[in-house]
Amino acid sequence: MADRKLVLVIADGLADRPVIDYDYKTPLEYANTPNMDRLAKGGLVGLMDPIAPGIRPGSDVANLALLGYDPSRYYTGRGALEALGAGINLGPNDIAFRANFATVDDDFRVVDRRAGRIRKGTSKLAKVVDDIKIDGVQGVKLVFKATEDHRGVLVLRGHNLSRNVSDVDPKEKGLKVITSRATDGTEEAKRTSQAVNEFVKRSHEVLREHPLNAQRVGDNEPSANIVLTRGAGVVPALPSLKSRSDLRGACISGTSMIRGLALAAGLELVDVKGASGGIGTDVGAKAKATIETAKDKNFILVHVKAPDIAGHDQDFKAKVKVIEELDGLVGSLIDEIDIGSNYVALTADHATPVDFGEHTGDPVPVVIGGPDVPASRVVKLSESAASRGNLGRIRGLDLMPVLTDLVGKSRLYGS
Amino acid sequence: MADRKLVLVIADGLADRPVIDYDYKTPLEYANTPNMDRLAKGGLVGLMDPIAPGIRPGSDVANLALLGYDPSRYYTGRGALEALGAGINLGPNDIAFRANFATVDDDFRVVDRRAGRIRKGTSKLAKVVDDIKIDGVQGVKLVFKATEDHRGVLVLRGHNLSRNVSDVDPKEKGLKVITSRATDGTEEAKRTSQAVNEFVKRSHEVLREHPLNAQRVGDNEPSANIVLTRGAGVVPALPSLKSRSDLRGACISGTSMIRGLALAAGLELVDVKGASGGIGTDVGAKAKATIETAKDKNFILVHVKAPDIAGHDQDFKAKVKVIEELDGLVGSLIDEIDIGSNYVALTADHATPVDFGEHTGDPVPVVIGGPDVPASRVVKLSESAASRGNLGRIRGLDLMPVLTDLVGKSRLYGS
Repeated sequence: MADRKLVLVIADGLADRPVIDYDYKTPLEYANTPNMDRLAKGGLVGLMDPIAPGIRPGSDVANLALLGYDPSRYYTGRGALEALGAGINLGPNDIAFRANFATVDDDFRVVDRRAGRIRKGTSKLAKVVDDIKIDGVQGVKLVFKATEDHRGVLVLRGHNLSRNVSDVDPKEKGLKVITSRATDGTEEAKRTSQAVNEFVKRSHEVLREHPLNAQRVGDNEPSANIVLTRGAGVVPALPSLKSRSDLRGACISGTSMIRGLALAAGLELVDVKGASGGIGTDVGAKAKATIETAKDKNFILVHVKAPDIAGHDQDFKAKVKVIEELDGLVGSLIDEIDIGSNYVALTADHATPVDFGEHTGDPVPVVIGGPDVPASRVVKLSESAASRGNLGRIRGLDLMPVLTDLVGKSRLYGS
Repeated sequence: MADRKLVLVIADGLADRPVIDYDYKTPLEYANTPNMDRLAKGGLVGLMDPIAPGIRPGSDVANLALLGYDPSRYYTGRGALEALGAGINLGPNDIAFRANFATVDDDFRVVDRRAGRIRKGTSKLAKVVDDIKIDGVQGVKLVFKATEDHRGVLVLRGHNLSRNVSDVDPKEKGLKVITSRATDGTEEAKRTSQAVNEFVKRSHEVLREHPLNAQRVGDNEPSANIVLTRGAGVVPALPSLKSRSDLRGACISGTSMIRGLALAAGLELVDVKGASGGIGTDVGAKAKATIETAKDKNFILVHVKAPDIAGHDQDFKAKVKVIEELDGLVGSLIDEIDIGSNYVALTADHATPVDFGEHTGDPVPVVIGGPDVPASRVVKLSESAASRGNLGRIRGLDLMPVLTDLVGKSRLYGS
């Protein structure tokens, strides 16, 4: 068998629920998707529970499962994936956190969790945060980096640290910043929580007086006067997709967490200009980059964030629009990748229904097109059609074994 | 409920993929199978992943799962199943290997892994191999037995031995015989690998000068001048099907490994003249023997090897032919077993697609006919029809619980 190539498109939050105002259709059902329909008709179509039926997954555990890594074994916290994705080289003793610039009042009560979704000047603010010294806990250094908008990552570096510490971010405005605590009884977790608390306090001290914040206050914008942390993690020890099944892969994604996960799985990152990860991302550029990358890789993970954002924004029309844009990408892939001898698979990491605005535990559609697969004869791809498809109902952890077997890279179990 | 009987037909490697040259049909879809179709129409029809979706199983682990034994718990290597099937009484300390007569040159480079598929005289060759004494490793005796054609089994007997040793068979011609190594750090595995290496070397010494080989060389046939080993195993501790669910069973199969597995599960072996396990096996005789055996057994496992062989041979037409022969067996069973009160189930242990020539990780069709089951209304049995059947998609380990429950032998879980 020639080296069959595999393109896996993960449409973040694609799956949805029927919406009354749109004739009980889901955005996927409502959208005009001739290319996805074409892929579905001649391929395997089914439903997939990212983790298990009814389990509502975060993007981190869902994507781990979709790449074949059992989260119950391999998940070590989101912070580490974000930090890797932000280009920080994590050592095995480093503890990494997701971080937000936020606005608090003098009582440390949260006024705006995202400091008005601050965009400008965050790298300057990050510089003074990165310079913070933690004096109260011996031998702990830190790295801080701003990422997209109000987001950033904090890494605590030193020996005898632990990821078993609670978040300081209360995740709701009007509540006070929470003191981080050890979530187990170890001395390491206690030390780490002390370092986190000192860091948060010091971040307020260095940020509240920063000239850029004085200017924001003058402009009637929320002051980015503190950094809040959550999602402590350590670098996960993932066996590479190459060592597991000879997939020499690349990842195209504008989302830090996915980029970090891809790196941890041994995939190369391909940067695409204009493909930001947000709504308005240039899917045409992603398609072009995928086709180019497929020339010397046999696995390309293409991640599209936009459907999830439209779901969180509870915007049906926006979700339909990004799905139709995604359909263009699928069309380019089908036409250029040659699915007579290679595979294109499309699925989601979870549902983000527009009526709900959050992830849910619904199953997601999965479509696999390529040689040697029976035709589903599905006419229009939708969650409903997928529930009657020829792949049945699988789990997220089954996806990579199924795809790996189709491209002829599976290993024999037994003899 | 009267004592319902259950006949389980395992068609080795039956499942396949659509083949372009035959109008995108699989051999099962292409074949004329009025009896299987009849069984399917009135029964439960679905897909089954022998292990899990995409997992590509060897016949040993697949059949363990189909009989209800979780391979992750019960699989102890294929060699033991082969040795049991060859009629060797294995003790708990015995290490059993699959073995091949092969042809090597003076550098121990493999010229023919099967010594020209030698058939005649192998029991004479086996005698001198069985007489080998292993001097280099204290307290190790051996038993060697020829089985079908070029195949045989080796058993090492003694204390402090281990199955954690690697194969000497390089599995490809042109490569050198491999030195067996311990695959764990134990003294037992080291001792065993030494015994294996000495055995292989000695087998070459006693075989290369054997008059039968001198004659083969004279006849321009490859000399069966060495025995190569692989698949070390120990006897698995399977709770019997009788103790598990009061199945008083028998097995009809011409294949050593299946016969060994059946013995290990507490099934009686029924020998059928003309039912060799190969292509051209007498399925009519198998049907007759099954019906006869069902008179005083309530479970009969009927294994048919031929579809797997046709798959490995990549011969579509041959696979269609053996499926049509198998259909005759199914017809006899339906007519004679009385499926108004007894059950006939048909499935495969894995797919061996003719376009691929190897096992794949595809799901296999499963059909269950008998009383109390809803009718699938499937018109023609095929992999595609099974994907839309009324049983959904189950796993190999689910099969025996489903069947055991239908025959009224399941135990209550909870109270």
